[in-house]
Amino acid sequence: MTSSLVSTDATSSSMSKPYVLGIDIGGTNTVFGIVDARGTVIATGSIKTQKHAKFEDYIDELYESATALLKVHNAEGKLHGIGIGAPNGNYYNGMIETQVNLPWPAPIPLTKLISEKFGVPAAVTNDANAAAIGEMTYGVARGMKDFIMITLGTGVGSGVVVNGQMVYGADGMAGELGHVIVRRNGRLCGCGREGCLETYCSATGVARTAREFLEARKDEPSILRNIPAEDITSKDVYDAAVAGDKIAKDVFEFTGRVLGEALADFASFTSPEAFIIFGGLSKSGELLMRPLREAFERNNMPMHRGKIKILLSDLKESDAAVLGASALGWEAK
Amino acid sequence: MTSSLVSTDATSSSMSKPYVLGIDIGGTNTVFGIVDARGTVIATGSIKTQKHAKFEDYIDELYESATALLKVHNAEGKLHGIGIGAPNGNYYNGMIETQVNLPWPAPIPLTKLISEKFGVPAAVTNDANAAAIGEMTYGVARGMKDFIMITLGTGVGSGVVVNGQMVYGADGMAGELGHVIVRRNGRLCGCGREGCLETYCSATGVARTAREFLEARKDEPSILRNIPAEDITSKDVYDAAVAGDKIAKDVFEFTGRVLGEALADFASFTSPEAFIIFGGLSKSGELLMRPLREAFERNNMPMHRGKIKILLSDLKESDAAVLGASALGWEAK
Repeated sequence: MTSSLVSTDATSSSMSKPYVLGIDIGGTNTVFGIVDARGTVIATGSIKTQKHAKFEDYIDELYESATALLKVHNAEGKLHGIGIGAPNGNYYNGMIETQVNLPWPAPIPLTKLISEKFGVPAAVTNDANAAAIGEMTYGVARGMKDFIMITLGTGVGSGVVVNGQMVYGADGMAGELGHVIVRRNGRLCGCGREGCLETYCSATGVARTAREFLEARKDEPSILRNIPAEDITSKDVYDAAVAGDKIAKDVFEFTGRVLGEALADFASFTSPEAFIIFGGLSKSGELLMRPLREAFERNNMPMHRGKIKILLSDLKESDAAVLGASALGWEAK
Repeated sequence: MTSSLVSTDATSSSMSKPYVLGIDIGGTNTVFGIVDARGTVIATGSIKTQKHAKFEDYIDELYESATALLKVHNAEGKLHGIGIGAPNGNYYNGMIETQVNLPWPAPIPLTKLISEKFGVPAAVTNDANAAAIGEMTYGVARGMKDFIMITLGTGVGSGVVVNGQMVYGADGMAGELGHVIVRRNGRLCGCGREGCLETYCSATGVARTAREFLEARKDEPSILRNIPAEDITSKDVYDAAVAGDKIAKDVFEFTGRVLGEALADFASFTSPEAFIIFGGLSKSGELLMRPLREAFERNNMPMHRGKIKILLSDLKESDAAVLGASALGWEAK
């Protein structure tokens, strides 16, 4: 059950089916795109994920929208396969097994229904793994055999690649580094446990840190005090930090430090060539990256210091999720 | 640079060379053994690791002793290859690159010199990885594609197997889980950092915990107070716990809890089918295993609860290191 390295030679064996469809199922939108073997996103479309209470109705709309797009681009009947990125998507059985932030009850037999509807093979993995496959196939991780993808969004996701292969684990659910505990008895996480990495280093974690710092440093002025505490977003903290706000800058120092400490522990695990950082929060640039790199180096084992790269994804964010998912379509069976 | 699953079919292609030599280089003793493809240890021998200041002299003695053993067992000229387990042994380049507890200056071109001396291919990895290969080939991990080996000795070692392959990482040094930080700003570790797993969950960690508990609970009686604090060993703590000593039992509770918490985090990484526990401390039985299992389940992500096995190695300890190392000999090139 290993996933082979996706090759862009895929066209050679499938000249008559030169495209894959990449589908990124998010909590709000489902974005899909036609992708060729060079990783060019030919065209994209989207539908609202939440519109249909029945999964079959959702699939019907997805099929109609995607087929219309394929027709316009003269790609109908030319799909090699379909790759899907979905929360908790299990590569091994093609299902979403546990309830996630989607309107349909789990388990959802995702690849079975999509494959039947479209008449081509489909494969699924979770969104962070899809991003890792995208980086390995088309992004900054091209040519790397060992790297770890970290996605900083509403939560923290990850995809681990070892020996050029995606790590799915015994049950298809490997690579949940957002749920490694970085502060014993720390912040309550959505998973029911305390102190998970994503309660600190996600967009929501940044907002949470800001609220904590504002509360703990009541006498210190901050632009962020102009916003009701419960409405503060990571974007607000970023804007305040850029404007020179001390508390906001400290929030990024703290976030980068916690993430850097965690990455140093992850490095002890698979000794990767690089970490690839992706997602909204990675747009914070040096505000996040400088403390991250410093904490990473300081906390690394001596033998790792100065050797492991921390890179930002260079995939266009609007395309990356679809591209990553689509890469799975080449190996779908 | 991937390592394939060692097959016990090896004899079929090498009837004339039906043996491998396994060498386990420890700080005190170097143990070697002749092993057949079924994993039977035909015979073992050993030399003192520390006797020779020059590595070449050590290799000479090792060659003479091993050759004598091969002759006695009619195995001379019948070696398929040599597998070596050595502290910090790097599978990729066959070297011990960084200084370890051995009398010779690093880097040591281990496989090159041994292979030249014996005239057969040799491969090396670190001792915990060798143990993992041994478990996968001959032990409780037979048939498993995803598991993590944890060795509890003077330190804590580990070997990670993913997709049926040993994880060596980008630089050959993956799987240093003994140096994951489990207590931020915790106990000083030999690696120069603070709070590493091995400062808590190794044999020396157990003794350290005992000293801390005795100091912190001065008014509480304990058999361990009959031993000068600096002389307490993990064996003393074990004996005291078996005799019902409260402080000694609490030491194992604490050790098991810290290890269980750590394993739950490791499970988020590669979602293994099992953890295999090996080494002196694993002989503590339920004193360690009960709190370990409880903490593991309590700290696991909900989706992992009740699904991941924690197993004790069933390889004979005297053979295990040699067996594990020897398995590498089948794939040495």
